[in-house]
Amino acid sequence: MTGEIGRAAREPGGRLGRLFAPRAIALVGVPGDLDRPGARPLRHLRAHGYTGRIYPVNPRYPEIGGLPAYPTLETLPERPDVAWIGLPAAQSAEAIAACGRAGVPFAVVLAAGFAETGAAGAEAQAQLADCARRAGVRLLGPNTVGYVNAWDGVALTFSTVGERSELPPGALALLSQSGGLGGCVLDRAADRGIGVGLFVSTGNEADLSLADYLEWLVEDGRARAIACLVEQIRDPERVAGAVARAAGRGVSVVALKIGASETGARAARSHTGSLAGRRDAWRAWAQAVGVVEVAELDHLAETAAALARAPALGGPRAAMVTSSGGVGALLADAIEPHGYVFPPFAAATAARVGPLLPEYATVANPLDITAGLPDRTFGEVLSAVADDPGVDVVLVPLTMATARAGAARAEEVIRAAARSRTPVVVCWPGGGLVRDGVALLAASGVPVFSTVASCAAALAGARARRIRRGRPPAAAARTAPVRASGGPGPLPWPAVRGLLVGAGLTVVAERIVRSAAEVDEAAATLAYPVAVKALGPARKTDVGAVRLDVDSPGALVAAVRALLPLGEACLIQPMVRGVEVLVGALRDRELGAFVMVGPGGVQVELYGERALAPAPCDAAEARRLVAACRMLDALLSGYRGAPAADRAALVEAVVRASHLAAELGPALTSFDLNPVIVGPPGRGAIVVDARVLLEA
Amino acid sequence: MTGEIGRAAREPGGRLGRLFAPRAIALVGVPGDLDRPGARPLRHLRAHGYTGRIYPVNPRYPEIGGLPAYPTLETLPERPDVAWIGLPAAQSAEAIAACGRAGVPFAVVLAAGFAETGAAGAEAQAQLADCARRAGVRLLGPNTVGYVNAWDGVALTFSTVGERSELPPGALALLSQSGGLGGCVLDRAADRGIGVGLFVSTGNEADLSLADYLEWLVEDGRARAIACLVEQIRDPERVAGAVARAAGRGVSVVALKIGASETGARAARSHTGSLAGRRDAWRAWAQAVGVVEVAELDHLAETAAALARAPALGGPRAAMVTSSGGVGALLADAIEPHGYVFPPFAAATAARVGPLLPEYATVANPLDITAGLPDRTFGEVLSAVADDPGVDVVLVPLTMATARAGAARAEEVIRAAARSRTPVVVCWPGGGLVRDGVALLAASGVPVFSTVASCAAALAGARARRIRRGRPPAAAARTAPVRASGGPGPLPWPAVRGLLVGAGLTVVAERIVRSAAEVDEAAATLAYPVAVKALGPARKTDVGAVRLDVDSPGALVAAVRALLPLGEACLIQPMVRGVEVLVGALRDRELGAFVMVGPGGVQVELYGERALAPAPCDAAEARRLVAACRMLDALLSGYRGAPAADRAALVEAVVRASHLAAELGPALTSFDLNPVIVGPPGRGAIVVDARVLLEA
Repeated sequence: MTGEIGRAAREPGGRLGRLFAPRAIALVGVPGDLDRPGARPLRHLRAHGYTGRIYPVNPRYPEIGGLPAYPTLETLPERPDVAWIGLPAAQSAEAIAACGRAGVPFAVVLAAGFAETGAAGAEAQAQLADCARRAGVRLLGPNTVGYVNAWDGVALTFSTVGERSELPPGALALLSQSGGLGGCVLDRAADRGIGVGLFVSTGNEADLSLADYLEWLVEDGRARAIACLVEQIRDPERVAGAVARAAGRGVSVVALKIGASETGARAARSHTGSLAGRRDAWRAWAQAVGVVEVAELDHLAETAAALARAPALGGPRAAMVTSSGGVGALLADAIEPHGYVFPPFAAATAARVGPLLPEYATVANPLDITAGLPDRTFGEVLSAVADDPGVDVVLVPLTMATARAGAARAEEVIRAAARSRTPVVVCWPGGGLVRDGVALLAASGVPVFSTVASCAAALAGARARRIRRGRPPAAAARTAPVRASGGPGPLPWPAVRGLLVGAGLTVVAERIVRSAAEVDEAAATLAYPVAVKALGPARKTDVGAVRLDVDSPGALVAAVRALLPLGEACLIQPMVRGVEVLVGALRDRELGAFVMVGPGGVQVELYGERALAPAPCDAAEARRLVAACRMLDALLSGYRGAPAADRAALVEAVVRASHLAAELGPALTSFDLNPVIVGPPGRGAIVVDARVLLEA
Repeated sequence: MTGEIGRAAREPGGRLGRLFAPRAIALVGVPGDLDRPGARPLRHLRAHGYTGRIYPVNPRYPEIGGLPAYPTLETLPERPDVAWIGLPAAQSAEAIAACGRAGVPFAVVLAAGFAETGAAGAEAQAQLADCARRAGVRLLGPNTVGYVNAWDGVALTFSTVGERSELPPGALALLSQSGGLGGCVLDRAADRGIGVGLFVSTGNEADLSLADYLEWLVEDGRARAIACLVEQIRDPERVAGAVARAAGRGVSVVALKIGASETGARAARSHTGSLAGRRDAWRAWAQAVGVVEVAELDHLAETAAALARAPALGGPRAAMVTSSGGVGALLADAIEPHGYVFPPFAAATAARVGPLLPEYATVANPLDITAGLPDRTFGEVLSAVADDPGVDVVLVPLTMATARAGAARAEEVIRAAARSRTPVVVCWPGGGLVRDGVALLAASGVPVFSTVASCAAALAGARARRIRRGRPPAAAARTAPVRASGGPGPLPWPAVRGLLVGAGLTVVAERIVRSAAEVDEAAATLAYPVAVKALGPARKTDVGAVRLDVDSPGALVAAVRALLPLGEACLIQPMVRGVEVLVGALRDRELGAFVMVGPGGVQVELYGERALAPAPCDAAEARRLVAACRMLDALLSGYRGAPAADRAALVEAVVRASHLAAELGPALTSFDLNPVIVGPPGRGAIVVDARVLLEA
């Protein structure tokens, strides 16, 4: 694939440099009437100061918008870097072939009606991609509204966001798989003074995909944060790699996932699959690779802008300086659940702050400076607090002001923030009256939020990322595939046992008896008590196919006689005691294999407590998963006087299960090891029953 | 209290009519320099067109802002309806006394430094309230920024929100216990074209409180929805009554609670108290009384405005008509978890819609009308869907447009909404480019939301209220107090037993033995198996003070001998089998008694599943609580082949426990009946152990 990039790879700005900063652009299919929607790219390029050459390509007109028009790409006076294909879907493939003939390295394909419409559209899209590959043309789209490169003044877009008089550049990039939503985010960001250097509507990603754009942005270096509106991650490994490289350069990747409810309805049919929603898999994946997840459209740009300005955001030690108890209380309510704390100030800080406040004010964190403090004094207090070595982030909730007073307060915040190494974050949920102050802050580079919710979302996201750094994605690639042949339905127990033992898991010892005669023979030689299970039925407890604590040869013989008719044979296992745990795995069609931990046993569906991570995972991750399940953690720690359990053995089992899940590759549907019984320290974690579903 | 309202009660507009629409206002302490903050009420009154008389009261000036100033209230040429007290805290009480002497019925007290500052301030506030009572003056405040009555053009406010050139009236009222936050909400609402008829900063509520303002608004009738920013509900019964009366007139009450994390830190010390946060109690209370709760500042005004416009909002059968898949998917993601469904259209609807769409479009709900449909056709599709008898609400997610195209689309939505009886709700998360369209919708009365989150919040709130109508609050008042004397620590078991039996609860049978001799005598007469417990220690299981399934006289004697040294005596109880349930109660200092249900037993802290309701509750409410606990509900229904349990008996026990909680009144700290063992149908719900904490 890389070899096919052709000329573009050797251009300045790296692989996609000429896509986003073309010296010349051909507009294929641009209409003669500039009022028609199809002429928007031409209008937007000009309105936003594109300085390169524009070549309308339309055989029906000699001239369009004052520019000479050309009948075909081949007749242009120079080879453009990019061709905008504004033709209907049916004519797009031919236009791409023409790009190939004319040596145009990049095509941006507007037409919808491809994979988003169903099977026929997907077929047409595959043909389009194939055509581009053969022509040596890289595609943005189809079903894209193009891009706006505000850094270099290239608004090659069909989106009406181009109608804005200004689209200010900034240290932020926005990659959106939904063109409409991307335009909304850009429009609102511009309203708030948040500059977006590059907006790409990635469309159906028939060729270039999120991973390509991310990789290029990391290389390019102008974006200090990248916001992504994601419908589907097409290449999770490459995206994870790009996110890790971005993190290495201090660049944050923030994402909002669209469509959780609809795809959730198509949940996997397996047992474990039905317990874990797609949303959980997405969240676990995002956390593992170091993506900062936001849950609301409006938080995307503000969170990314804040992280672009203050990459070290994340706390947990917050200080709050406010004259607005109300906004401060709302913000504290919203961030305390995410792990932020408000420690007391250092003695030196208190000594600096005390004399600045009115007599009746109390020096405490959060610090209420009381109303009516002069702006200058407010700034001095802020500086003193920001200098406190025990403070990771200073939060400044502001409230109503006159336009003039707001601007004065903003100036003091800007001054104090400039003096400080600790990030200063402003939360200012006002309307028109505080617009001037907010604009000053936005322009100055101080992170400023227009809602308590967006401020809390950014702080929560930054905190989550601080706790869970991205891991090298290579781990997933290092596993060797396991061969496992599944028929319809769950794998038979002997195959399950073999698979688990092969993966290094400890499976309970067992003896299989197929007849009354066999049990008579075995009974005398066993250590009691034992468990007896009919071999065959799932959910054995429900159908009475399990007898526990069988404590004598006589009882064993009776139990086997009773259970043999329920299955093909009986398993006899030693009784294992300890904490019952579910260790599961599932394969998400988009994001790959996940391992899952939760309290186990027959009531497994009732607990509803689960933690997921992409598979394979390492011991640190497995330990985090176990600790994330409140109930499981308490049981393993020795709940109400019970002995503590062998947590290390469980962690080891989770790691092994995660490797098995990864190694099964696309063969995996899901598996549940339930229960894994975790005994006292040194006694291990023993798989006592399991259910494995493979792809047919 | 009612008798003391004096003159005001006989004025037009009901009790508070003259407070909010005064014919004359005295401004006590207004400074001579109009640029000083203290002059804001004067400036704002004039800027927003107050037509009554304004009397500055300040002995240092003969004239202020072109108006004659007066040295005292007594020297005014007429008796004003309201006195604004703009003096420091220490002088406010004397000013109120002066109001009394001058016959001024209402005073608005700006000064802070009262109960919000601690014990000394609380004492000063009590004196202020006492002074007002003696003077026959009703107080708004202290620590208030006043009010803005946009209906009648009275901006008697210190808030800088008065600096806005326009504060448009509307069918919304805003009551805020935080003046600063209230101003923010008003400022932002005005930005969005949401008119607020009356904004009251209720301050510390030393006299008039939320309940008074709510009652008056319901009587007044101009507000079709009331938004409340709540720090503390001072009179939950009266507020509940006002909310119920509002609901009876189709008026919605929407609330945001501030300070959950801080107050959460001061959580009740009892066992049950620590399981349930204050946030849960607030939520349970709000739901029970019919308040629509929102969790974010920005959702307050938009949710209230939507409910003012479409009181029938609540679904659950939603239709979606969109050309923006992205916004639609985000909205569906956000509301499906709240119980909204998207049923297929009726055949007649499909027949009307089909011919209007392009050939390649599919008639389905959500309906993607595809891009490029003319506005007129879009309107016709919308009308057809709104006429579908199976649709409760039509959602219209809109996306980017040019200003002109947005306005045209808005006009079509307005036309379709006007033709329809079904509410049509627009979600339009754009920025400056869609402002004109949003403004048209806002002005037309169609509910319109500027974020997906606020749209989802309003729909979720409306849905929750639809499910749980407010109940008559009288139930709580009808209970008679129970006398119970508690010392420090938990109540002794015999007293607990007496309390529970007295409340009509079934407590397990028992025999108390205090010596080895007694047990020898009893052993022969009992039915086995039995449970033996040492009487005294809490958490008996942890300290080995419980023996279950004691199945013979010999075993009993041995158990009692072992346990007697651990306590003062032994309880012998028949073994009871069934589902273990926790039925608890706690008293919230603000909102009163609550009853709580969840899975019970020794692992009670692990499950973390709880449902709360204000106490007392009726059987329907108790049934809902039980069903709301997913795990408990499954166990009671007969989990994995186990027999179903006697749910009716549990519901009865919950109702009785709730009445006990209410009847204990302020004596209650908390109680836990754990386990209540619910046997098979007809076998009842039996309290096997309990812990009761009363106020010392």
